[in-house]
Amino acid sequence: MMKPIHVHGQPISCENTPLICTPLVGKTPEAVINELAVVLPKRPDVIEWRVDFFEEIGTLATVIDVAGRIKQAAGAIPIIFTCRSMNEGGERIQLDGAGVVQLLAAVCAGRCVDIIDYELSNAADDRARLRQASRANDVAMIMSYHNFQSTPDAATLAAKFMDAERLGADIAKVAVMPRSPEDVLTLLGAVWRASEAGSIPLIAMSMGGIGAVSRMVGGVFGSALTFAVGKSSSAPGQIAIEDLRIALNTVGRSVTGKLN
Amino acid sequence: MMKPIHVHGQPISCENTPLICTPLVGKTPEAVINELAVVLPKRPDVIEWRVDFFEEIGTLATVIDVAGRIKQAAGAIPIIFTCRSMNEGGERIQLDGAGVVQLLAAVCAGRCVDIIDYELSNAADDRARLRQASRANDVAMIMSYHNFQSTPDAATLAAKFMDAERLGADIAKVAVMPRSPEDVLTLLGAVWRASEAGSIPLIAMSMGGIGAVSRMVGGVFGSALTFAVGKSSSAPGQIAIEDLRIALNTVGRSVTGKLN
Repeated sequence: MMKPIHVHGQPISCENTPLICTPLVGKTPEAVINELAVVLPKRPDVIEWRVDFFEEIGTLATVIDVAGRIKQAAGAIPIIFTCRSMNEGGERIQLDGAGVVQLLAAVCAGRCVDIIDYELSNAADDRARLRQASRANDVAMIMSYHNFQSTPDAATLAAKFMDAERLGADIAKVAVMPRSPEDVLTLLGAVWRASEAGSIPLIAMSMGGIGAVSRMVGGVFGSALTFAVGKSSSAPGQIAIEDLRIALNTVGRSVTGKLN
Repeated sequence: MMKPIHVHGQPISCENTPLICTPLVGKTPEAVINELAVVLPKRPDVIEWRVDFFEEIGTLATVIDVAGRIKQAAGAIPIIFTCRSMNEGGERIQLDGAGVVQLLAAVCAGRCVDIIDYELSNAADDRARLRQASRANDVAMIMSYHNFQSTPDAATLAAKFMDAERLGADIAKVAVMPRSPEDVLTLLGAVWRASEAGSIPLIAMSMGGIGAVSRMVGGVFGSALTFAVGKSSSAPGQIAIEDLRIALNTVGRSVTGKLN
């Protein structure tokens, strides 16, 4: 059904159930480490450090140090390092675009994360530089598109998935806001068709209250990873990891015919 | 989101969570009553007696007697009485079409059930007779369409919902088999648009393994009732009531913004 996500040459997901990724959104080193301590016992498959929430984002040594502490505590759990831009739903940060590129490149060079996320909307040369830096350091790269206002039409969504693959992403991610239940179906249809047409793993969700169902059923339509709340949410509509795991389990048994 | 189902002039569902209906598929009076004893502690919102599974379907007095015993044991839980035709996924029975009409009319007259289900594909005069018999006895009427082979296109599905409303149904039901994940989206889109266009409550599901997700999320798209397994399944893809209830609860909290 879905194409598995690989890190360091190994698949980290199976065919039928998407990975559960839990974000860390702490503002200080202590808050992030505390959050991690709450999240780890809930056994997420992947952890995303949303560094745009981190107040010391401007101090590279601190970011590298905290990333290393996360990595050490998380053990085998892969870490996604994401500095979401304000344009796509992130926090206001002290760094400009060039500073973000430097930060991501340094984190790749430090090999203290497994995956970086970088938006498709960024400048081509910045993206190319980070593709080079991530590849050189065996760090996978998500190229992503977020829209917190609405759900573009199917053709526009299809183009986002295709752009990511064409530009060399290891993983394509699309997260959009529905204005009606029909928009949720548009997103699910787009990821399904992209999974048929393309060859890289995909991550897709419809956000907000009515979009939350896409976080439960997206795997059936080819989405290989779904975000859940460990301690704090990083986007509207995220479900608590415990509830999401139960729902994914039911969906997984349905798809494989092991229902009752 | 969804239009509530009414019995005896009262709504039996709320806006955000579909009703859970559990089928009874016993072959003998004892089996049916046994099944009911297993099902009732699981607190279904509605019970469907699939009388086409019942070997004594040809003996009216026995059917009426068992229906009365179900009603008495079920208390306030509404009962759907369904003799699914072989053409639409039912069992082989001793009665011909005229016999089925007589049976349903007698059950309405006996007022031992709350809702009858009758396929849209039946002859117009039979359907009209049962509409009259059900209305005269304060029994609600589902008009239904089932396709165990495939999922017709969106226009065909839309026509089924519209036909049911035009022909005087209290509730329209459509259950179809997907051949791909996209077919699941076609069904969900069709019920959503029908819920926008029409005025009667709707029941819709995509069957089988990949369709099972529609049993969990259909409420977001306007489906007011979902079938779950209490003791035995009556159609492919039905989920155990306990698992379905947890998933519906998560979906309901998502939609109402009470996620975490």
